[in-house]
Amino acid sequence: MNQDYIKPNEWSLIEEGFNPQKVKSSESLFSLGNGAMGQRANFEEDYSGESFQGSYIAGVYYPDKTRVGWWKNGYPEYFAKVLNAPNWIGIHVQVEGETLDLNTCTKVSDYARELNMKQGWYQRSFVASMPNGVDLKVKATRFLSMTLTEVGAIKYEVTPLNRSVEVVITPYVDGGITNEDSNWDDAFWQINEVSSKDDFAYVRSMTNKTAFDVCTGMLNELYLDDQKVEVKGEVVSESRKVGLKYTLKLSQGQKATLVKFAGYVTSLNHKSEVLVEASEQILIKARNYGFDALLESQIQEWDAIWQMADITIKGDVKAQQGIRFNIFQLNQTYSGKDSRLNIGPKGFTGEKYGGSTYWDTEAYCIPFYMATKDEKVARNLLTYRYNQLDKAIENAQKLGFTDGAALYPMVTMDGEECHNEWEITFEEIHRNGSILFAIYNYTRFTADKSYIPEMGLEVMIAISRFWKQRANFSTDKNQYVILGVTGPNEYENNVNNNWFTNYIAKWCMEYTAQTIEMVKEDYADDFARVIKKTKLSDQEVAKWLEVAENMYFPFDEKRNVYLQQDGFLDKELVPVSELSKTQRPINQKWSWDRILRSPYIKQADVLQGFYFFEDQFSLEELERHFDFYEPYTVHESSLSPCVHSIQAAVLDRMDQAYTFYLRTSRLDLDDYNKEVHEGLHITSMAGTWMSVVEGFGGMRVKNDCLSFDPKIPKEWDAFSFKVNFRNQILKVEVSHSGTTFKLEGDRELKILINGQSTMLQPDNKIVL
Amino acid sequence: MNQDYIKPNEWSLIEEGFNPQKVKSSESLFSLGNGAMGQRANFEEDYSGESFQGSYIAGVYYPDKTRVGWWKNGYPEYFAKVLNAPNWIGIHVQVEGETLDLNTCTKVSDYARELNMKQGWYQRSFVASMPNGVDLKVKATRFLSMTLTEVGAIKYEVTPLNRSVEVVITPYVDGGITNEDSNWDDAFWQINEVSSKDDFAYVRSMTNKTAFDVCTGMLNELYLDDQKVEVKGEVVSESRKVGLKYTLKLSQGQKATLVKFAGYVTSLNHKSEVLVEASEQILIKARNYGFDALLESQIQEWDAIWQMADITIKGDVKAQQGIRFNIFQLNQTYSGKDSRLNIGPKGFTGEKYGGSTYWDTEAYCIPFYMATKDEKVARNLLTYRYNQLDKAIENAQKLGFTDGAALYPMVTMDGEECHNEWEITFEEIHRNGSILFAIYNYTRFTADKSYIPEMGLEVMIAISRFWKQRANFSTDKNQYVILGVTGPNEYENNVNNNWFTNYIAKWCMEYTAQTIEMVKEDYADDFARVIKKTKLSDQEVAKWLEVAENMYFPFDEKRNVYLQQDGFLDKELVPVSELSKTQRPINQKWSWDRILRSPYIKQADVLQGFYFFEDQFSLEELERHFDFYEPYTVHESSLSPCVHSIQAAVLDRMDQAYTFYLRTSRLDLDDYNKEVHEGLHITSMAGTWMSVVEGFGGMRVKNDCLSFDPKIPKEWDAFSFKVNFRNQILKVEVSHSGTTFKLEGDRELKILINGQSTMLQPDNKIVL
Repeated sequence: MNQDYIKPNEWSLIEEGFNPQKVKSSESLFSLGNGAMGQRANFEEDYSGESFQGSYIAGVYYPDKTRVGWWKNGYPEYFAKVLNAPNWIGIHVQVEGETLDLNTCTKVSDYARELNMKQGWYQRSFVASMPNGVDLKVKATRFLSMTLTEVGAIKYEVTPLNRSVEVVITPYVDGGITNEDSNWDDAFWQINEVSSKDDFAYVRSMTNKTAFDVCTGMLNELYLDDQKVEVKGEVVSESRKVGLKYTLKLSQGQKATLVKFAGYVTSLNHKSEVLVEASEQILIKARNYGFDALLESQIQEWDAIWQMADITIKGDVKAQQGIRFNIFQLNQTYSGKDSRLNIGPKGFTGEKYGGSTYWDTEAYCIPFYMATKDEKVARNLLTYRYNQLDKAIENAQKLGFTDGAALYPMVTMDGEECHNEWEITFEEIHRNGSILFAIYNYTRFTADKSYIPEMGLEVMIAISRFWKQRANFSTDKNQYVILGVTGPNEYENNVNNNWFTNYIAKWCMEYTAQTIEMVKEDYADDFARVIKKTKLSDQEVAKWLEVAENMYFPFDEKRNVYLQQDGFLDKELVPVSELSKTQRPINQKWSWDRILRSPYIKQADVLQGFYFFEDQFSLEELERHFDFYEPYTVHESSLSPCVHSIQAAVLDRMDQAYTFYLRTSRLDLDDYNKEVHEGLHITSMAGTWMSVVEGFGGMRVKNDCLSFDPKIPKEWDAFSFKVNFRNQILKVEVSHSGTTFKLEGDRELKILINGQSTMLQPDNKIVL
Repeated sequence: MNQDYIKPNEWSLIEEGFNPQKVKSSESLFSLGNGAMGQRANFEEDYSGESFQGSYIAGVYYPDKTRVGWWKNGYPEYFAKVLNAPNWIGIHVQVEGETLDLNTCTKVSDYARELNMKQGWYQRSFVASMPNGVDLKVKATRFLSMTLTEVGAIKYEVTPLNRSVEVVITPYVDGGITNEDSNWDDAFWQINEVSSKDDFAYVRSMTNKTAFDVCTGMLNELYLDDQKVEVKGEVVSESRKVGLKYTLKLSQGQKATLVKFAGYVTSLNHKSEVLVEASEQILIKARNYGFDALLESQIQEWDAIWQMADITIKGDVKAQQGIRFNIFQLNQTYSGKDSRLNIGPKGFTGEKYGGSTYWDTEAYCIPFYMATKDEKVARNLLTYRYNQLDKAIENAQKLGFTDGAALYPMVTMDGEECHNEWEITFEEIHRNGSILFAIYNYTRFTADKSYIPEMGLEVMIAISRFWKQRANFSTDKNQYVILGVTGPNEYENNVNNNWFTNYIAKWCMEYTAQTIEMVKEDYADDFARVIKKTKLSDQEVAKWLEVAENMYFPFDEKRNVYLQQDGFLDKELVPVSELSKTQRPINQKWSWDRILRSPYIKQADVLQGFYFFEDQFSLEELERHFDFYEPYTVHESSLSPCVHSIQAAVLDRMDQAYTFYLRTSRLDLDDYNKEVHEGLHITSMAGTWMSVVEGFGGMRVKNDCLSFDPKIPKEWDAFSFKVNFRNQILKVEVSHSGTTFKLEGDRELKILINGQSTMLQPDNKIVL
């Protein structure tokens, strides 16, 4: 861990004391989001110190022209990235002509930040001793409304403590922003209008190339000692920015409060011709609520989320804070209401990974959203991929595949591949398997029978076609092989027969073949439609099964383990424990070739397969493979510790499970990877949830039933979580003395507890 | 072949008729060079059509900041590239106020270019019908002096054909040039001075970062109807350019001739403070010669080169033209006088590959220079690497190697690695072997016993240390393996146990161990010095031998062939002959992953090993491996056909050998790869020479003797070549009726002919 300045607290993140070195880290940690937009915790007032400005609109992106050293045939032309959007939080504050800027103050006292996760708001307060001798007390409270998702609200309070002063407060919206990450320093935005109408001011800007039309508007209220005052702001307009300037005389101790309602409306959800009007309307609606009522509504929205999604941990404040932070951020990032959206690895907290969709969604995020939200949310995530099937087929065609085979992109916004490293873009093809696995996982969990015939089957056929074409018959091995891939462990590139990839390929083809039979039987109309559309023949399916049945898997007889890939045993097998700390993390210390020829594993690879397909292996097999691979695993991916935590729990290695749990749940809070200033690891947060529910709770779906095998780390007194299983809510509380299962629902539910079948009655609980 | 507009001619390249589409191709093909500088055949007068401007100074480069899509730890900070240098050929021509520009003429008649390879000059002539109705006859003759290597000379003759006109001729030098290839559009040059002194005008410019100081100067003479006239030019000076303007009234049919002496002097060879003076001095010296005398001297210089280097081919003009073109360009590129210089893959004919040094030098070029020049030339090429040993050790350290191990860069100018694709930069390590092989090859051919103790041994030790560290013991195979490499066939990346790499690694360690014994015995002082410097121990050498003796080689028992790498037989082994033409070249049609998992071979890989180490394999083994690998070889590297031509000749497959020969010798003339406009494939031209001398001539060094096994393609009547073997010249003439060996020397020479030992007497010949 690299930091511990965030105070342990069950429901809040609290920072006390102003440290300019921490500003960028805190900007990430205190990020706000409401699914439709999000922003780093930048200061409202001017700040001339080091900062990373970021405000993002879900679904608004720019195709940044690809930059590579050496072009490879087949590379995509651009990397679509969610981009820094106009700043609507900004408030210039001038006191007697001097700009408030924490970087130039002679002293900053009583500085504190709180991110209240329970209620979904963020507050910052301080006393600034300004160079002109004025001590100004400031309290800024901010939230992005879950009720009106196009609106954010700021209450900005200033009080001169040591004398009467003239204060000029200028809230503004500013379209003159840039991305830190830009390949060619393109202008991402053009400004079309900077204007105001009464107390509503706005900047209208449009992304270049993609033409997302965005109106960033604001509407303000002013209070003196909590009494509303009617002051007309003076319009201060620049080419990309508009402000409303309020000049106030404050006596010593008198408080001025600016309430700023602001936010984005976009052409994603409104017609361009009414965009400005829509912006004004929504802000008026917010003002009609009023700050306090809107905040009250926010608290209720978050309460509803927590009612369902909360995990409690007793006796371990840091663990409690960690899991809530993860759940909070996941809910800030994706609300599941819009199937055009997805979950970027950094959510709305930074620019890295471009806000795009990775296989993280299917492999890590779906279980969380599936179990803590209505099933429509997970279904929307599946629909996102269904809607991009045509582009996945095009993508496969670019790489030489034919006949409707699909390769989903490694990284995408609108379905087109964005990534441009050949060893990832072209070769990390297991992602295709995870997309199919997610369909299976969703169906298994929700028992929603309609998704597959309506949408999923087409995706499954296209993916199975890909695998069939991607495998080739090795006359040498007399089996099918898959050559030249990169597995989940990206510290191996262009290997042959990555076990995970071969396994999921085989599984995809077999599961698709089974599913075809099911659809044929149960959904004859859908079946006929899909067959007509895909021109699938029985022979084709038979060929898939031939490839699946004859798939080769690297295996070591001596150790009785599957090998991560061909040739793995040729490596110098020195465990991580014998590696000097000075060499870690290897991705910062070693050249790429050295990493590649080492045995070191970035994240679960064979073990990822054991995680996905746990029921196809015995506990002994899991133990053997865990014992073989984990010692070579450096966990330099944020997605690594969670899978290992779950498997350590399965193996009853609770100390190890707990260590991995801490690492995943407090990855950002404790900044294990020294990069929290770049943003948070949103998608791996879903892995944290899994490590509690699936790891310690031991939750699985087995034989169409929820199954539990609860265990508790010795560091905890108790923990609890809830699961929405097929529209009934099950609450599980685990302590050292036993486990309680409580069903909130309308019908009985059979569950398995430590393998024993038990019937739960609605609104009743069972204590074990 | 993609073009055939170059007229077949034994000694010249001739183009007739003006075709703007061919301008860039011809600019490459008609390039001039003299080892110290070189230039594309750009027009002297203005040209507004498509053109690729290029003028290059040997050894003057710029470190262009690396650009990659995804940074990998260990990548070099820059790519050093030879850069486009100030233009000294330029001559503005205005006729009655209208600029001469072939792109705007109403008609261009009698257009012809000739590159006279025998005499080393280039001429272009045409009649331009200008928009203003003037028909202007132009003849421009140009050469880069082999006598005064800092000077080029141009004779530019203009004659108005249809009326009397005023002509303004403004020869100039221009520092305002740019590179087409630039990663960040940096300014590569700064202009420090633009000035003139009497009839000498110059631009003084300096490369940024590397601070190469260059004075580009010119000195002109003017003639009317071949009578010298004294006209003082009017200085026309701009910020980066200076010209001297001559205004002439020409009556119809009257010829004006501008003789321009111009060129570069640089801080590589002169002190900065006398640079301008040196420029003026050398140009005055050239003028004192006079154009005709300097050209006469040029003809003599080239005559001397051809005396030694010429290869004649009777009965096949295109083959004759091809081989002479190759020999001519090699001599234009590298004269071997300066051990700071080396041979860029495109020489002075384009920007691609940055003019930097690749393993091409050791693997392909050294045999040519060794056999057609004084042995000092090859020794200079070896010295170049010796001088960069410290940087090669540093380079290895960056990649985690220790204790004086060296990894020579894949691409370099001054010894630092420039390349930035991990699969090449970090993994194409066989280059290290070729550098050691070149030392062996040089010693074997020249019997120069001094190079190794003086310089070579240190290089050899450092390289052997690298191999020992780079191999690791596989407990699984109970042998040493080399993991994660790219072999000579770059259509495979990050493979395990590339046979060529493993073989050359083993050979390096064994040969170094032997050589150490030799030096210890024969050069005790040098031995002591090297041991002291390198701290080499007997144990270390013993360890090398252990690794070498226990090196693993992938082998297929069934086919009885060595495998290019582990897993090669898992590929879908469809021969190139069954690949549709629409799929070729695969590097333009296929994505990189598809190329990688295919069996297709870019250039000789296992066969490259059989070429280097021919005497370690039987003819049957060669045949078996040739038959196995050649059918999968797409020859998409310019370095591929030559090795195959040689081996086809060894195997008595003369039709195939001839086909490969044509492809290598006329690669650029016939533009097989559709890229001649980018520049010529200089280093592969040495391979063409090898395919005649080593392929058809069958020349080898065996048991310290030159050995021949002459064969002649049925398409030829006869061919001949000369070899400088240990300071004696042997001329070999092969026809269908027999072979003649003639020795020009001062002592008898034992040679092997078809395995039979024969003694040649000085100035005597043997006919077989």
